[in-house]
Amino acid sequence: MTKERMVYINGDMVPENEAKISIFDSAVLIGDAVLETTRTFNHKLFRWTEHRNRLLRSINGARLNFDLTPKELDEVTQEFLLANLPTLAPGDEGGVGHLISRGRMGLVLPTTTTTFVMYFFPLSRGLSKKAIYYEKGCHVVTPATRHMHPLTVDPKIKYRSRLHFSLADEEARLVDPEAIPLMLDHQGNLTEGTGWNFFLVCRGELLTASERNILQGVSRMTTIELARGLGLTVKEQDLQSYHAVTADEAFITSTGMCVMPVTRFNGQLVGDGKPGKLTLDLMNRWKEHVDFDFVAHAKRFT
Amino acid sequence: MTKERMVYINGDMVPENEAKISIFDSAVLIGDAVLETTRTFNHKLFRWTEHRNRLLRSINGARLNFDLTPKELDEVTQEFLLANLPTLAPGDEGGVGHLISRGRMGLVLPTTTTTFVMYFFPLSRGLSKKAIYYEKGCHVVTPATRHMHPLTVDPKIKYRSRLHFSLADEEARLVDPEAIPLMLDHQGNLTEGTGWNFFLVCRGELLTASERNILQGVSRMTTIELARGLGLTVKEQDLQSYHAVTADEAFITSTGMCVMPVTRFNGQLVGDGKPGKLTLDLMNRWKEHVDFDFVAHAKRFT
Amino acid sequence: MTKERMVYINGDMVPENEAKISIFDSAVLIGDAVLETTRTFNHKLFRWTEHRNRLLRSINGARLNFDLTPKELDEVTQEFLLANLPTLAPGDEGGVGHLISRGRMGLVLPTTTTTFVMYFFPLSRGLSKKAIYYEKGCHVVTPATRHMHPLTVDPKIKYRSRLHFSLADEEARLVDPEAIPLMLDHQGNLTEGTGWNFFLVCRGELLTASERNILQGVSRMTTIELARGLGLTVKEQDLQSYHAVTADEAFITSTGMCVMPVTRFNGQLVGDGKPGKLTLDLMNRWKEHVDFDFVAHAKRFT
Amino acid sequence: MTKERMVYINGDMVPENEAKISIFDSAVLIGDAVLETTRTFNHKLFRWTEHRNRLLRSINGARLNFDLTPKELDEVTQEFLLANLPTLAPGDEGGVGHLISRGRMGLVLPTTTTTFVMYFFPLSRGLSKKAIYYEKGCHVVTPATRHMHPLTVDPKIKYRSRLHFSLADEEARLVDPEAIPLMLDHQGNLTEGTGWNFFLVCRGELLTASERNILQGVSRMTTIELARGLGLTVKEQDLQSYHAVTADEAFITSTGMCVMPVTRFNGQLVGDGKPGKLTLDLMNRWKEHVDFDFVAHAKRFT
Amino acid sequence: MTKERMVYINGDMVPENEAKISIFDSAVLIGDAVLETTRTFNHKLFRWTEHRNRLLRSINGARLNFDLTPKELDEVTQEFLLANLPTLAPGDEGGVGHLISRGRMGLVLPTTTTTFVMYFFPLSRGLSKKAIYYEKGCHVVTPATRHMHPLTVDPKIKYRSRLHFSLADEEARLVDPEAIPLMLDHQGNLTEGTGWNFFLVCRGELLTASERNILQGVSRMTTIELARGLGLTVKEQDLQSYHAVTADEAFITSTGMCVMPVTRFNGQLVGDGKPGKLTLDLMNRWKEHVDFDFVAHAKRFT
Amino acid sequence: MTKERMVYINGDMVPENEAKISIFDSAVLIGDAVLETTRTFNHKLFRWTEHRNRLLRSINGARLNFDLTPKELDEVTQEFLLANLPTLAPGDEGGVGHLISRGRMGLVLPTTTTTFVMYFFPLSRGLSKKAIYYEKGCHVVTPATRHMHPLTVDPKIKYRSRLHFSLADEEARLVDPEAIPLMLDHQGNLTEGTGWNFFLVCRGELLTASERNILQGVSRMTTIELARGLGLTVKEQDLQSYHAVTADEAFITSTGMCVMPVTRFNGQLVGDGKPGKLTLDLMNRWKEHVDFDFVAHAKRFT
Repeated sequence: MTKERMVYINGDMVPENEAKISIFDSAVLIGDAVLETTRTFNHKLFRWTEHRNRLLRSINGARLNFDLTPKELDEVTQEFLLANLPTLAPGDEGGVGHLISRGRMGLVLPTTTTTFVMYFFPLSRGLSKKAIYYEKGCHVVTPATRHMHPLTVDPKIKYRSRLHFSLADEEARLVDPEAIPLMLDHQGNLTEGTGWNFFLVCRGELLTASERNILQGVSRMTTIELARGLGLTVKEQDLQSYHAVTADEAFITSTGMCVMPVTRFNGQLVGDGKPGKLTLDLMNRWKEHVDFDFVAHAKRFT
Repeated sequence: MTKERMVYINGDMVPENEAKISIFDSAVLIGDAVLETTRTFNHKLFRWTEHRNRLLRSINGARLNFDLTPKELDEVTQEFLLANLPTLAPGDEGGVGHLISRGRMGLVLPTTTTTFVMYFFPLSRGLSKKAIYYEKGCHVVTPATRHMHPLTVDPKIKYRSRLHFSLADEEARLVDPEAIPLMLDHQGNLTEGTGWNFFLVCRGELLTASERNILQGVSRMTTIELARGLGLTVKEQDLQSYHAVTADEAFITSTGMCVMPVTRFNGQLVGDGKPGKLTLDLMNRWKEHVDFDFVAHAKRFT
Repeated sequence: MTKERMVYINGDMVPENEAKISIFDSAVLIGDAVLETTRTFNHKLFRWTEHRNRLLRSINGARLNFDLTPKELDEVTQEFLLANLPTLAPGDEGGVGHLISRGRMGLVLPTTTTTFVMYFFPLSRGLSKKAIYYEKGCHVVTPATRHMHPLTVDPKIKYRSRLHFSLADEEARLVDPEAIPLMLDHQGNLTEGTGWNFFLVCRGELLTASERNILQGVSRMTTIELARGLGLTVKEQDLQSYHAVTADEAFITSTGMCVMPVTRFNGQLVGDGKPGKLTLDLMNRWKEHVDFDFVAHAKRFT
Repeated sequence: MTKERMVYINGDMVPENEAKISIFDSAVLIGDAVLETTRTFNHKLFRWTEHRNRLLRSINGARLNFDLTPKELDEVTQEFLLANLPTLAPGDEGGVGHLISRGRMGLVLPTTTTTFVMYFFPLSRGLSKKAIYYEKGCHVVTPATRHMHPLTVDPKIKYRSRLHFSLADEEARLVDPEAIPLMLDHQGNLTEGTGWNFFLVCRGELLTASERNILQGVSRMTTIELARGLGLTVKEQDLQSYHAVTADEAFITSTGMCVMPVTRFNGQLVGDGKPGKLTLDLMNRWKEHVDFDFVAHAKRFT
Repeated sequence: MTKERMVYINGDMVPENEAKISIFDSAVLIGDAVLETTRTFNHKLFRWTEHRNRLLRSINGARLNFDLTPKELDEVTQEFLLANLPTLAPGDEGGVGHLISRGRMGLVLPTTTTTFVMYFFPLSRGLSKKAIYYEKGCHVVTPATRHMHPLTVDPKIKYRSRLHFSLADEEARLVDPEAIPLMLDHQGNLTEGTGWNFFLVCRGELLTASERNILQGVSRMTTIELARGLGLTVKEQDLQSYHAVTADEAFITSTGMCVMPVTRFNGQLVGDGKPGKLTLDLMNRWKEHVDFDFVAHAKRFT
Repeated sequence: MTKERMVYINGDMVPENEAKISIFDSAVLIGDAVLETTRTFNHKLFRWTEHRNRLLRSINGARLNFDLTPKELDEVTQEFLLANLPTLAPGDEGGVGHLISRGRMGLVLPTTTTTFVMYFFPLSRGLSKKAIYYEKGCHVVTPATRHMHPLTVDPKIKYRSRLHFSLADEEARLVDPEAIPLMLDHQGNLTEGTGWNFFLVCRGELLTASERNILQGVSRMTTIELARGLGLTVKEQDLQSYHAVTADEAFITSTGMCVMPVTRFNGQLVGDGKPGKLTLDLMNRWKEHVDFDFVAHAKRFT
C-alpha cells in the first residue's frame, strides 16, 4: 500500500490528513448535511444505484441543492473509487462515504451553496474489532434516547445531525461496554441502530420494523429478498422489546457487517444465546449473493 | 480594521479563511457537538458567567469530554476576545462562538477526544439586514417541522445537530421570504425559533414558553427580569398559536437582536400590526440595562 | 309577553320562527362559524366587554372576516337586546347568542363574505329543568369522546363545529339519563363540559383545568376572582379523574347556571354526595356579585 | 336550462334561493350533521349503493336518528336526481349532496328529531376552475392544522363539523394561492385533503394512507381496484411527507375530480414536476370505467 | 364428585380451601406474577403446547426465574390435570390456571426465588351465567380506563398486575350491569377485553386488532385459522369504535367461551342486533374443530 | 425481642410465618389491591392522618369497598401497632403496611367483598443495607420501563399492580447492581422511583415532579414544607433527565429513608459527586422535625 488515501472536496482530491472543511460550513455549525455509505465486494460497489437514489432522496428530503446529474454523480463516484482502491491492503475491501452539506454559512465569510465531500476507508479497520461477534453474537441494548421523530427530521433521510446516536451509544455502554444501541421510537417500537437494521426470527417468520421511522436500508432490503428467496415469510411491522426477548433468533444488517448475529438483548439471552440456524443460513445466502465471504474477511484482519 | 479575525482551534489561533477541521471530526460526520454564542456590549461580554455555565451544562447533557476548568475557560475566552476586538469597525460589537465536539472519529485516522473551536464575528454583519424589523416588526411562521423532542436531544442542550433548523427556515420562507420560523413541539405548543425565544403580551401580562422544551435563553431571562422590574406579571406556560394571533403584542429575544418586535404571525396581524407599547418599553429598559442602543447599532451598519 | 322574539340576520330583524339561513351557508355545510353567548342579570348584559373581546379573538383564531368595529358591535348588540327584553316574562332574564360564519359557500349561489346572526332566549327555558340540581347536585360523566385537539381547532376559540359535543352528551346519558359529560383531553386530563367549566375543592384549595385546552370561560374567571376574594387558593393545573373522585366538593360554572354543585362523578359520590360548603359559599358570593339570586330564578320557573 | 334547481328539505322541494333552515337547527348551532356527496356520469349516480351505505354508517357513527329504510332512501334520492337533471347544461353532470342533522335544538322553539336535506349542483361549476390542473398538476401543502382525531370525531364519519377544513385551506393559501391542503394526523402521517384522498407512486408501487384516519373514499377504492386491475401493487400504509417529496408521481382522487395529478408538494417538485405516466394511465382507465371523459368535461366548461 | 379439588403450590398438593400463599409473596405485595389459563375439551388440554410456550414467553418478558424445563412443565401440568379431572361433574370440562411469581419478598422473612401455583376449576361455574349470551349476544362497552401501555408492561405478557381490569369492569357496568369492557389503547384503538379478544365482520371480511397491544390469544389464533379455512379474508389491523358500530357482526373469543356473539356496542346495535351468520358459522366450525359443543355445555349447567 | 410479630388478616392476628391469603384473592389473581405504608419515629406513627386519608383516597380511586369508618381504621391501626412494637429491637423503629383488596374472586369458592391485611416490619431490616448511601449517595438510573399511565391506573392511587416496578428494578441493575430506578412518564418526564420521590437542587431552587403522575408522597410534602421553612423556593414542574445531570444536588425522599442523597444519575456525577450542602441541611431539618436521627438509626443496624 504505497499509495495515499485521498478525499474529494468540491472537486479537489486532497490527502486524508489535510482533508478539512471550513468551521463555517453548515455541516460543522449545524450538522446540516446528508450522507451515504457504500461498500465494495471484490472491489465493486454493492448496489450503487440504490445507494445513489437514496442519496438523491435524502438531498430532496433535506431541501439541499445539488447540481450533479445522476450520471455525473455515478462517474465522479466511480472515479473516486478507482483512485482509492489501490490503497487497500491485499484482500481488503473499501467503503465510500458521501457528504452533501448546504455549504458555508454567511456568518463572516461569503456563503457557498453546496459542499460535496467523498471519503474512502478500508472496511477491515472497523470490522476487525467486530469479527468475534460473528461467532458469539452482539449484545443489543435499548437506550433511553429515542430515535429522531419523523416530524423533526425523517429517519428515511440519511442525515448527519446525529448527536443522539452518540448519546445512544454512551447509554448502551453503561449496560455493557460491548453493547450496541437499538433506539425505540416515541411510541416504544423498535426502530434501528446507529447505522444498522434489526431482524428477529419468531416461530419461523422473519420480523423487522416497518419503514415508518427507519432508514430504508439497502442491506435490509437485500436480506428481505434473500429470505423470501429461501421461502421465508418476512413481516415488516411494529415490534416491541417483548418480541426480541422471546424471539428464537435475532440479527442485524448493515453495509459493513452484512448480517451479524445478535445473542443478547437488554441483558437477556435471545433464544439459546447462540447465533441461530436461520441467521447462519442467511449469512451463507449473503455470501453467495455477493460472492464474498464477509466473515472470513473480517477475521483475516483481526 | 487592519487586523485579521482569528479562529481558535484546539489551542491554535488561525486566520479565519484557513480555519478548518478534519472532515472526520464528529462535528462534521454526525453533528456531534455543542455550542455557545455570547456577544459584547461596549466590547465587554454580556453575562458571560451564565453563558459559560450553560455551555458546561450542554457538555454534561451531551456526555462530552472537556478538560478545562471553568476558570481556564474564562481566561481562554477572554484572551480570544481581546485578540479579536481590534478587528471590529468603529462602533461595532462582536460575538464569540464556542464549539465543543467529541473529536475526530476513528474511521481512518486515530481518534481524538475533544475539538474545541472559538470564532469571532462582527454583530453588524448579521444585524444590518434586520435593522428594518425593529420598526416594522418580524413575521413569524410556524413550520411543519417540529422541534427536537427532549427524549432525542434535550433542547436545553445547545447542540449543533440542527438540520431541522434549516428545514424550518426553508418552510417559513415558503409563506414569506422574510418570515422566520417558530417551531411547535410534538403536542403543538409554541417553543422557540432557530436561535431566539418568543414572548407575547396578552391583556397586560407577559407570556412565554416554559423551559420544558426550549433553550434556557440568557436574553430571555434578562427580559423576564427587566419585565418584572417594570412590575409586569410574567408567566412561563404552554402556549398555542391561538395566543399569538389574539395577543396584543409579540416580540422575540436573542443574543444578537436583544428584543425585536413581531407584528405578523402565520400571515395574520398581531395586535394592530405595529410594534407594541410594552415591547418598546422593554427595548428601552434593555438599552439602559446594557448601556447600549442596539437598535441604533443595527441601523448604523445598514 | 305580547311582543315577539326577534332574530338578527345580517342587519335584518326577523321573527324567530322565520329565522333561517341558506343551507349553502358555511355554518350549515361545514360548521364553519364561531359563537358567543352572554346573559343578563337584572336585564343588563353580564361582563359584555369580556364576552365581546373573546368573540373577536374567536374571529381572529378562526381567520374569519368581520367588518364591525368593537364599538359598532357593542351598539348593535345593545340595540338587539333592548328590542328583545320586553319579550321576557316577569322576573326572567335573557341570553344573547352571536353567530359569525364565513358566509355562503359558492357551491351553486354566489359566495358572501360573512353571516352575522344574533338570537335571544329566555334563560328560564333551559334553567327550569336544572333548578333541582342546585339542591341535589349534578352527575358528571367522562365520555369516550375526547375534546377537540388544539391543533385541529383550539378550544379557546368558541367554535360551532361541535358534533363531538353531541357524541359526548349521548355517551354520558348511557351511564345516567341525567348525567352531563366532562370531556378528557388526549392525555387524559379533565377539560370542560359542553358549555361549562369544572372546579374541584381538594383539601381547602380550589382546582380547575388550565387554559391550555378549554374555553377561557367568563364565569370561570368570575368564580376565580370571587374565590380569591374569599381568601381561597386557586390552582389552574392538569387534573385527572382521580382528583374528582377524591375531592371534597365539585361544581361547574357556566353563563346560564353561574355555579352549580356536582355530587356524583362517574357513578361515585363526590365528598359526602351533597353540595359542599365552599360551593354554597361561592354561590352566595356570586349572588351578591351579580346582585341576583340565580337559584331562586331557576326555581321560580320550574 | 329553463328549469330551476330545487332543494329537498324534510320532504319539501324548495327553490335553491329559498332553501333555508332554522338557525336553531343543530347543523347551524353546533355543526351536528353528516353528509354524503355523489355525482353522475352520463346522468347516472356513480356507485350509489356504496355512497348510501357509507351515509348510513355515518348516521350510526354520529348516533343520529334516521327513519328511512335503505330502499326509501334510494327512491327519494333517485326521484330528487331526476327532478334536477333537466337543469343541467348540455354535456354537464350533476352532484347530489345529502345532509342529515340531529334536528332543531330546543333553545327557544320545540325540538325536532331529524333534518334531512338534499341539494343538487352542476359539476361544471366547481370543475371549470380546476381543468387547468389536469395538465399542470396541483400544488399540495401540509397545513399547520391537524386532521380531526378519531377519538373526537372519527374521520370515517363524513361529518359537517369542519371548521378545521377552512383553517387548513387558509393556511395552504399562505404558501401558494393555488395550493390545496393535505392534513397530517397527530403523529405526522399524511391523511387526506378537504374532500379528497392522496396517492403516491414510489418505485412502481401505488401508496396511499390506510383507512385509520381518513374517509373511506369511494373514488379512492375505485382507483385501487383499477390499479390492481392494471397489475399494480397498491399499499395502504402510514405515509410521511418524505414519501411525497421523493415520489415519482402523485395524484388525488375525489368524487368531482376523479383523478387529478399533483406536481408540487410543499413547494418542491414531485418527480420531474409533470403529471406522471402511471397517473395518466389511471386517468384513462377511469375514463373507460365510467365511460366518461372527465377531463374533457372539465375543460369544456372552462 | 366425591374427590376434592386440589391446588398445586411449589410442589405440594393442597385442598382448595387451604390453598394460600404468604402475604409477603411478590404476587400479593406487588402483583408481580404471570399466568396462563388452559382448558380441556373432552378432558384433554386444548393446544397445551401453545399455551405452555406463551407462558415461557411471559416468564422471559417479565424477567422471572423458572427452573423447570418445558418437558418438566408439561409433565407436572398433565399430572395435576389428571389428579383433578375426577372432581368434574359428568359432562363438565376443566380449566387449569398457572401462576408464577418472583417469590417471597424480603420485607421480614427470607426471600424465595419463585412461587409456582396451579389451580383447577370446572368451566361450568363461570360459563353457566354466560350461556344466555350465546343466543342474545353480549353488550361490549369501551371503559374510560385505557389498556396497559406496552412500555409499562407489554400486554403480550400474560401478567397479573391487573387492577385496571377491575376498573374497566366497574366502568362497563355503569353503562349496563351486563356489559363487558373492551379497552382502548392510548391512541384510541380497540384492544382486548379482560380475558378475551374481539372480532368484527365488516363487508365480508373478518377484522381484529393486531398483536401490537393485545395478548397473543390462542383462541384468537384458532379462530383466524378456522376463518381462513372457510375462505374468509382476515385482517389484523388498528380498529376504532367506528368499525364496531358500523360492523355487520361482532364476536369475542376466549379460552372459556371459545366464540361468543356480540350484539351491542356502547349502547348501539351491531348489525341487526342478533348474532350474525358468519359468527354462527365460525361457532360451528369451532365445535367440529374441538369435537365439542361448547354452547350445549354451557347451557347444560345453567 | 421475645414477642413474635403478628399480621392482621380480616380481624385476626396471625403469626407472620402463617400469614397467608387464598390464592383466589383478587390481590393474588389480578393484583387488585391498594396499600399504604407508614413508619414510626420514637414509636409513634408519622403523620398517620395524612397516610390514612391517602389510603381512603386510594380505596375510592380503585373503586374498592371498605366498611370501616376513618375512626375505626385509626383505632385498629393503633391497636395493631401497639401489639407489634414490643417485637422491635432496642433503638429500632417499625413500619406498618396496609393492604386492601377487592376480596376473593368467585372462580371456585364463594366471593368475599374485601380483604384487609396489616403487617409490621422493623425498619432496620431494609435500612441497614442503605446506611452507606447516606454518605456516598445513591445511583439513580432511568429504566426503559415507563411509569403507569394515569389513564390505566392513576399513580396517585397507591396500588399493588406493580409488576413494572420489578421490571424497572431489574433494568436499573443492568447498569449498576447498586442502582435504583427513576421511571419516566410517557412524555419522558421524570416521575418517581419504586417507592420514593425525587428532588433536585438547581441554582438554589428545589425542583421536583408535579403531582400529575406520581404518588402524593407524605415525605415529599414534609420535605417541601421544611424547605420552604428554610426560605427555599420549591417548584413542582415537569423535569427531564437534563435537569438531573446538570443539577447541583439531588436526593430522594421516602417513608423509610426520609431524605437520601443521590450522587450519580445514569452513570454521570450529580454536582461534584458528593451529597450536597442543601441536602445535608434538609436532612438535619428533618431530624429536628421528627426528633429522630434516621441516619444514626440506619447505621446502628448495619
